[in-house]
Amino acid sequence: MTATEALPAVLAQIDRNLEASVDRLFALLRIQSISTDPAYAPQCAAAAEHVAADLRTIGFDTSVRPTAGHPVVIGKNRDGASRKSPRVLFYGHYDVQPVDPIKLWQAPPFEPRIETLDGDRKIIVARGACDDKGQAMTFVEACRAFKAITGELPLDITMMIEGEEECGSKHLFAFVRDNADELKRDLALVCDTGMWDAQTPSITTSLRGLVYEEVRLTCADRDLHSGLFGGAARNPIHVLADILAALHRPDGSVAIPGFYEGVHELPDDIKADLAGLDLTPEKFLGPIGLRIPAGEKNRMLIEQISTRPTAEVNGIVGGYTGEGAKTVIPGKAMAKVSFRLVGAQDPEKIRGAFRDFVRERVPADCTVEFGNFSSAPAFDVPFNNPALARAREALAQEWNKKAVTVGAGGSIPIVSDFKNVLGMDTLLVGFALDDDRVHSPNEKYDLKCFHKGIRSWARILAALAA
Amino acid sequence: MTATEALPAVLAQIDRNLEASVDRLFALLRIQSISTDPAYAPQCAAAAEHVAADLRTIGFDTSVRPTAGHPVVIGKNRDGASRKSPRVLFYGHYDVQPVDPIKLWQAPPFEPRIETLDGDRKIIVARGACDDKGQAMTFVEACRAFKAITGELPLDITMMIEGEEECGSKHLFAFVRDNADELKRDLALVCDTGMWDAQTPSITTSLRGLVYEEVRLTCADRDLHSGLFGGAARNPIHVLADILAALHRPDGSVAIPGFYEGVHELPDDIKADLAGLDLTPEKFLGPIGLRIPAGEKNRMLIEQISTRPTAEVNGIVGGYTGEGAKTVIPGKAMAKVSFRLVGAQDPEKIRGAFRDFVRERVPADCTVEFGNFSSAPAFDVPFNNPALARAREALAQEWNKKAVTVGAGGSIPIVSDFKNVLGMDTLLVGFALDDDRVHSPNEKYDLKCFHKGIRSWARILAALAA
Repeated sequence: MTATEALPAVLAQIDRNLEASVDRLFALLRIQSISTDPAYAPQCAAAAEHVAADLRTIGFDTSVRPTAGHPVVIGKNRDGASRKSPRVLFYGHYDVQPVDPIKLWQAPPFEPRIETLDGDRKIIVARGACDDKGQAMTFVEACRAFKAITGELPLDITMMIEGEEECGSKHLFAFVRDNADELKRDLALVCDTGMWDAQTPSITTSLRGLVYEEVRLTCADRDLHSGLFGGAARNPIHVLADILAALHRPDGSVAIPGFYEGVHELPDDIKADLAGLDLTPEKFLGPIGLRIPAGEKNRMLIEQISTRPTAEVNGIVGGYTGEGAKTVIPGKAMAKVSFRLVGAQDPEKIRGAFRDFVRERVPADCTVEFGNFSSAPAFDVPFNNPALARAREALAQEWNKKAVTVGAGGSIPIVSDFKNVLGMDTLLVGFALDDDRVHSPNEKYDLKCFHKGIRSWARILAALAA
Repeated sequence: MTATEALPAVLAQIDRNLEASVDRLFALLRIQSISTDPAYAPQCAAAAEHVAADLRTIGFDTSVRPTAGHPVVIGKNRDGASRKSPRVLFYGHYDVQPVDPIKLWQAPPFEPRIETLDGDRKIIVARGACDDKGQAMTFVEACRAFKAITGELPLDITMMIEGEEECGSKHLFAFVRDNADELKRDLALVCDTGMWDAQTPSITTSLRGLVYEEVRLTCADRDLHSGLFGGAARNPIHVLADILAALHRPDGSVAIPGFYEGVHELPDDIKADLAGLDLTPEKFLGPIGLRIPAGEKNRMLIEQISTRPTAEVNGIVGGYTGEGAKTVIPGKAMAKVSFRLVGAQDPEKIRGAFRDFVRERVPADCTVEFGNFSSAPAFDVPFNNPALARAREALAQEWNKKAVTVGAGGSIPIVSDFKNVLGMDTLLVGFALDDDRVHSPNEKYDLKCFHKGIRSWARILAALAA
């Protein structure tokens, strides 16, 4: 029986077993695998063991592989090795974002539950419900259904589920290089992106890159009384505000010299396609309480969020931030700044240009230190990869609507290395919706997205195996 | 015999009786009158009774007046009532700061002793040795010497020695309002400030006022993923940085419209005096690790810290500020901003102008809220108050050096009320030195400052009585 012949039974199996699939996702969601905070290292290790054990139940030969950070789960199944179909590497991550501000959560973030939205939308609510535990499990559950119906998986599949995606995949790059031989397959699959809208499936054909920097400024060697020193002592918050304010020009473009090197204009037809999607501020910003696009003034909103580079301050702190008043001039202030990159922008050149930009604006008697968190170049998939067409067709069958190809604003750092180090393209297929509150309190994943996501992967696996 | 005629004998009496003066100060220093800690309320009451009893021995009609906190000692002497010389109110405080960290004290803080510094400097060491028991007693001992030599005090003097200065003079404001009739004299005298340096006497002629604001910005109604929303969603840290960067012009002046209304230029002679003090960046900023004055470029450093208004960001926070990287665009950001005021700047007008300045810079789809913490107008003594010239001349005679007039950054809360409620100017004359470790372990007061402080007050009293 071919995978295509088995597909109707596999889909029926998925429908029948949805409740059990949700239970398995809940078990994973209960593990507090916050990767960026060292205090949660044991929980990250527990999540890795949990995933490895689960993969073992569907025929994967699994191992939990140590790194200098959180471990990577590797699972191998060679059931489809004799076929001519592509050997695939599925990539996902078991780690999640921090939960602060915790008081904005309507229920504890690691106690997953089903809630109802708008009367009839069932949603799974928890940190990681979507990003990426829920999404990664759509693929795992599709594999499980194949295994249940046919006794084997339809393709040669290697799983790589890491634990540091939310803190920049710090140790995964070396891991991939060191294990290139076993990880190099024909195609990578990732489920960490979104749908165009709740009805329209989407394959992400480009991802913005990322450079993340921390800027630590020191002026005086101690905190000062603003009455005694105010007016003469340099205030590091002022210095930082001046630098951050200078990052953007009045037209919304980034003012760092050389920043736009390697940023290419889209072809006219692609630009017309994007315009045709008619992404209005009302539609995109309305749900988060905004209405005025904040990016480059001469660009469509959809360009601002997907095909144009950005500079964002992700965090800032300095001086007294508690209740009430304290008349301090702090000695230090800190900001976290990141850049989304596109096209051929060079992350390390951008990092260097940013540091020069900052250093030029730091007074001679103050000092600045930089923290380098991560960087990744932008990524894109060639439109002539045959797997892309097969996946689009499979998605169209499941959703009864043509699947669109889009550029995404977020980065998945390792995807560039799949191309550059392992020499394979990546299909990014995901089922997140814009209102999923990814990285925010009350993160959710529509039950329908989870369910049809599993079904979509079953169809894609069958299509690739054909 | 006029006070001026008596002065040589009074000064000789002070010199002869210095040891007894020190003994009396020591008796007061042994009382653990820590006002901010309720556990020391009995000691505060004991200090008040001690002061009242001492004042009685030099002819004051004294009473210990209850408040909702620690009592206020009031002493009245009408010996000079028939003269044309000004009636004065002397203000000081018998309470002291807590002593923690106690382990940093080289000897018990309430066991006063004389030590020797640098081979020949005799210093009185104890909590309160300077602030304000030692300083207040310079005035009391000057009165005592007049009483001993002439049998009376040279002026109509009212004493007000409070017990809550170190915890914000909480109940004194109401006390002054409630007892305005008996406290309203022609001039207030305070001994709670410092010398310019160990050789140069100083009168503090201005204290900067304060307006303290909190700015809370909201853009999106939640925290956002910078990959998904970056480029289109307004970032409140950017908005805040733009506003804070706009607060100052490139020349260091404050850019809020109307900010400098009520800021007067110093008279040329006073400005020349300040220039003569030669306060260099090395001297003032060097000890805190800086070397470039950060204020208005066309002003001397001493003006920047004392006679010019400022705007300082005292705190800022927004987004992710923990360890590592989080690619968030926060929904909210907050800053605390305060202004030091001088001259006739109106705190409430400044507050309003600042809020307008901020509101104009907040995008139409974002919101701002303000928190109002406190405000106080600046205080200054008119340079044409004849008492000021007389006191400067008296100080010059004692120290054999011209007395400087300076502005101070810190505040003595009740002094504004002497002007606004009681309608009188205040002369702030003190003998503290920069190394007195006020509010810190091992507080000290130079014996020379105590001795010549007593002699200085005797000269000032004679000068005012003339």
